[in-house]
Amino acid sequence: MPRPVVALLTDFGTRDHYAGTMKAVILGICPDVTLVDITHDIPPHDVLTAALELAASYKYFPAGAIFLAVVDPGVGSARRGIAADTGDHRLVAPDNGVLTAVLRESPARRVVELTERRYARPTVSRTFEGRDRFAPAAAWIAKGVDLSALGRSAGSIQQLSIPLPSVTDDLLAGEVLRVDRFGNLVTNIDRKLFERFIHSDGIEISAATHRIARVVTTYAEAAANEVCALFGSSDHLEIAVNAGSASDRLNLSRGAPVTIRRK
Amino acid sequence: MPRPVVALLTDFGTRDHYAGTMKAVILGICPDVTLVDITHDIPPHDVLTAALELAASYKYFPAGAIFLAVVDPGVGSARRGIAADTGDHRLVAPDNGVLTAVLRESPARRVVELTERRYARPTVSRTFEGRDRFAPAAAWIAKGVDLSALGRSAGSIQQLSIPLPSVTDDLLAGEVLRVDRFGNLVTNIDRKLFERFIHSDGIEISAATHRIARVVTTYAEAAANEVCALFGSSDHLEIAVNAGSASDRLNLSRGAPVTIRRK
Amino acid sequence: MPRPVVALLTDFGTRDHYAGTMKAVILGICPDVTLVDITHDIPPHDVLTAALELAASYKYFPAGAIFLAVVDPGVGSARRGIAADTGDHRLVAPDNGVLTAVLRESPARRVVELTERRYARPTVSRTFEGRDRFAPAAAWIAKGVDLSALGRSAGSIQQLSIPLPSVTDDLLAGEVLRVDRFGNLVTNIDRKLFERFIHSDGIEISAATHRIARVVTTYAEAAANEVCALFGSSDHLEIAVNAGSASDRLNLSRGAPVTIRRK
Repeated sequence: MPRPVVALLTDFGTRDHYAGTMKAVILGICPDVTLVDITHDIPPHDVLTAALELAASYKYFPAGAIFLAVVDPGVGSARRGIAADTGDHRLVAPDNGVLTAVLRESPARRVVELTERRYARPTVSRTFEGRDRFAPAAAWIAKGVDLSALGRSAGSIQQLSIPLPSVTDDLLAGEVLRVDRFGNLVTNIDRKLFERFIHSDGIEISAATHRIARVVTTYAEAAANEVCALFGSSDHLEIAVNAGSASDRLNLSRGAPVTIRRK
Repeated sequence: MPRPVVALLTDFGTRDHYAGTMKAVILGICPDVTLVDITHDIPPHDVLTAALELAASYKYFPAGAIFLAVVDPGVGSARRGIAADTGDHRLVAPDNGVLTAVLRESPARRVVELTERRYARPTVSRTFEGRDRFAPAAAWIAKGVDLSALGRSAGSIQQLSIPLPSVTDDLLAGEVLRVDRFGNLVTNIDRKLFERFIHSDGIEISAATHRIARVVTTYAEAAANEVCALFGSSDHLEIAVNAGSASDRLNLSRGAPVTIRRK
Repeated sequence: MPRPVVALLTDFGTRDHYAGTMKAVILGICPDVTLVDITHDIPPHDVLTAALELAASYKYFPAGAIFLAVVDPGVGSARRGIAADTGDHRLVAPDNGVLTAVLRESPARRVVELTERRYARPTVSRTFEGRDRFAPAAAWIAKGVDLSALGRSAGSIQQLSIPLPSVTDDLLAGEVLRVDRFGNLVTNIDRKLFERFIHSDGIEISAATHRIARVVTTYAEAAANEVCALFGSSDHLEIAVNAGSASDRLNLSRGAPVTIRRK
């Protein structure tokens, strides 16, 4: 039996003890777990970014991995805690849409509400359910507890509205969904949609008011400081600058329109 | 036998190799250890913040966990290295008060001075005892070495002065001890003290000159952008803003006075 | 058999999922690996800093450790992927000089080019070879695959130009190679060179135009806020301020000249 993997994604940052404390709780329940940080630096309360980062990463984890996604502006309120099983993976999170992008790609076979008190800590803080409810649930799953033991079926769960590109006549209109560490502007336009749209004709790509001269296949293919477009590691169109930050250069961030016009 | 857990808390940051190098040293001595970062982002040289973060986290770790706390402005000087045993946990640190808050809560059954050279690296840098003395000591403890082998009894150790709230007549006067990643202002007023103080009368809460309208139980209970008070995950009074930063909003940080006045 | 150690050093940051996704891939191939972050906060595209951080850290890892160093401005281009064996350690990286400082100190017995497709992911992204080529190679090595199976001999590999100090008459002229988290200015002047140079005469140390009054052995030995020189944890001369940042205080950063003049 390989050791179970629990992967964490939160907006807790790494300055405070919060992420470490969740790991402490997990190790107390399931000592042989392998813990992996996806990131703890989701912008505070930003459920959409969390949903997208999780979706970009989860599929690279081994089958059986368990995900603990805690970006939870509604902590302590009536919003529920849930655990979902996609067949390959199990995910534990608040029911606020943070699993939307993953479950759209890998539909859940079952989703339960975390109602069984015995799988939470004896006292559940109204401000840190990550520690007292979600971490224990993930740890018990890692330990072998079946989802059905954690609570009743959750029924329908919250869906997040994830901006989708639109196609009208000669225009494919998308937008920047995230800006990565390198300043790459990652859009919601995936390669398949792009290729279906462009046919064999010429196209014009724009990021807000900036014309992008060409689509390259690697950052290094662009000239130094050239702004270019390419398909990044998740096969979505990115606006990038070779060895620089497209975000700084064009002064664009999340939500900026990126359009492709057939000539 | 579960694998031993070593939890790290430092002010080394994560930009330099320092934290990774300490882990390397630990793995060289005790290969089957599970390493957990509490945080490496304690502000440089800030022993008080380190002491408080450690105290907020350690009790969630499984019994037997070993803590390596290296915030050490006096590195290389005459200040001693120590290891403490609380029964449930062992802690390794410079003798500069960084263990004060933990040991106040979980008194040490034994504290030794790290004098035995065989449990340090052969050469001990005067500027990085974390790598050469503290990490090896923690690793040897994880490996099963008894504290008494690490050195002689430490006698009395340094105590840090941790600001305590005061009560006079109708005023409970505390202060902000830390500002977390979300901008929550965490005070030194714990729930028990608060509840003993307020009786059944009305109260007025102030953070510096700002009046706080009410005490809520969850962040989400406050209106959007409302400044409120609540008891956070360590059961201390916090000044918070729902989905925002109280620190930014009120322009307050550590040391800011927070008072409760009986009407 | 101890569990294999894979140590990671990248410029991916910790905000995006990239580092976590590389770990996911490694765990899928070699589930019992122990993963250690050296750092992910190398400045974007800064191969020199990466080379120096790796060299400062690798020797503290246990024999058999595997290093995955991905700072890769040329990702997807014709630059090769390589794996090197120094006897004690194996290292996987793009062939862009990032291994220069390590291999200068611990010469490679063998370097291979990562050409064997079966040890990469089935599809290799042109923008994230860390995930699709380098992480799998490190994981397969951790799993026991011999370097010779990963590809043909690499022949000569890229060397990075690392600034070296110069000695002329009465002047030893070095420079700041890195500024650490504490603001210490770490130079390229090591203790041996320094001691050979100074003889028994008096010396004058300057950092840019600032005279440094004396060489101390610990930060704490300097007066509060005194700018001093000392030999840091890698035995290189540092310009430092006790409990402060020399970088901020002198407004100096990488490349700043540090000179020692014999009187």
